[in-house]
Amino acid sequence: MAPTQRIFTAALVVIGDEILSGRTHDKNIAQIATWLQIQSIRLKEVRVVADDPDAIVEAVNTLRARNDYLFTTGGIGPTHDDITVDAIALALGVPAIVHPEARAILESYYETRGGLTEARLRMARTPEGASLIPNRYTGAPGIRCGNVFIMAGVPSITAGMLDALSGQLEGGAPLLSETVGCWVGESEVAQLLGDTEKAFATCQIGSYPFWAEGRTGANFVIRSVSAEDLAACSRALIDALAAIGKPAVPGGI
Amino acid sequence: MAPTQRIFTAALVVIGDEILSGRTHDKNIAQIATWLQIQSIRLKEVRVVADDPDAIVEAVNTLRARNDYLFTTGGIGPTHDDITVDAIALALGVPAIVHPEARAILESYYETRGGLTEARLRMARTPEGASLIPNRYTGAPGIRCGNVFIMAGVPSITAGMLDALSGQLEGGAPLLSETVGCWVGESEVAQLLGDTEKAFATCQIGSYPFWAEGRTGANFVIRSVSAEDLAACSRALIDALAAIGKPAVPGGI
Repeated sequence: MAPTQRIFTAALVVIGDEILSGRTHDKNIAQIATWLQIQSIRLKEVRVVADDPDAIVEAVNTLRARNDYLFTTGGIGPTHDDITVDAIALALGVPAIVHPEARAILESYYETRGGLTEARLRMARTPEGASLIPNRYTGAPGIRCGNVFIMAGVPSITAGMLDALSGQLEGGAPLLSETVGCWVGESEVAQLLGDTEKAFATCQIGSYPFWAEGRTGANFVIRSVSAEDLAACSRALIDALAAIGKPAVPGGI
Repeated sequence: MAPTQRIFTAALVVIGDEILSGRTHDKNIAQIATWLQIQSIRLKEVRVVADDPDAIVEAVNTLRARNDYLFTTGGIGPTHDDITVDAIALALGVPAIVHPEARAILESYYETRGGLTEARLRMARTPEGASLIPNRYTGAPGIRCGNVFIMAGVPSITAGMLDALSGQLEGGAPLLSETVGCWVGESEVAQLLGDTEKAFATCQIGSYPFWAEGRTGANFVIRSVSAEDLAACSRALIDALAAIGKPAVPGGI
């Protein structure tokens, strides 16, 4: 499919008390953000919510309405605290059912692993009308219902589900970026950055300071959907830094 | 101050295109979640939003209204893409001003570092009526306005600001937790977990599966504000696991 200039957006709802308590350090935000960039889909907002049906319904319904795609992670295992499928069925206004194809996958997976118990059968439940996202690691599939994609909480399992979805979702104009590093305090070049950005209507410049090797530096990330403007803006920034005696490091530090 | 049984809640808004693009892996969610646990304040929700005034205003106004405390990270540096102070002033319905005390701090900090330029003076701006949160690393302070706490994006700077706030905010009944590990697939014990939780009204049990050493295991985290119920529920869980031939590992695996 040829890329169009329309921008496709996504949101992510991370579900889990263990993230909010600080017990588990989330890895899915960065993983899904990176994957979406590659699909030319912009991640617009992330929410982390508790294992609470009302909180999940509110986040899912708000964000699926204003984005092309909505992803969730967490809460699709076999135990009593895994309530994501029921909450999303509630949000979508459909019943949660045992999905025949998911049941067959789990029957086969658990055939040599003690059989498909009632608890394990919970992992075959989906909102009515859903299709499945393969999970090559542990059988229990991810779930797609309309523009909602229900993924696992365990990052390695979600990685496999993202692999299965790669190239399957329509994306828009890719957001291109170039990074220019410089050993300079960002406050010394704030005016210069603002002026450079203003001169290129399609470009945004983000400034990310750091301290390393006992010195102050910053990386400037220029983003644009236009390859031509991106190159011109990067060039202009490198020239402007050189003019004040601060050589730029193309590609960043 | 004696702890009360009222539960104090907080929300966090992480502000930054660099998180949503996957370029930067957020560390502030885990850092602030952990710090809040220690202050006996419950983190209820996190939102990650773009460097966009409307998105910031919406998130800040929704979440400050329904929590005791609201924290933000990111967007308080000297460059054009640092718009947090203006967006929060807009959300609060007050002007953004140059805070005299913040100006004095920055004048002193930059006295031997090239002086207080117009760009650096941006870091002295606050919503009107704010007080300051000390930043021992780079001068530029965090900001408190009512129940809103505006922190840096750089995690080490935010860590210093959190240190300065430690013990300063009223917290409620601490949420206690105990972890019990077991070499068992969580689907084998799903019923047992649900039954154990139901037997202790003040307790919640979270189930966190993992794969390690070629085996399936899970940690079960029991949470309660009652130390007595917590101990009884942990004991009941350990006994129930032993009864099916699965010895528990107190403290978790």
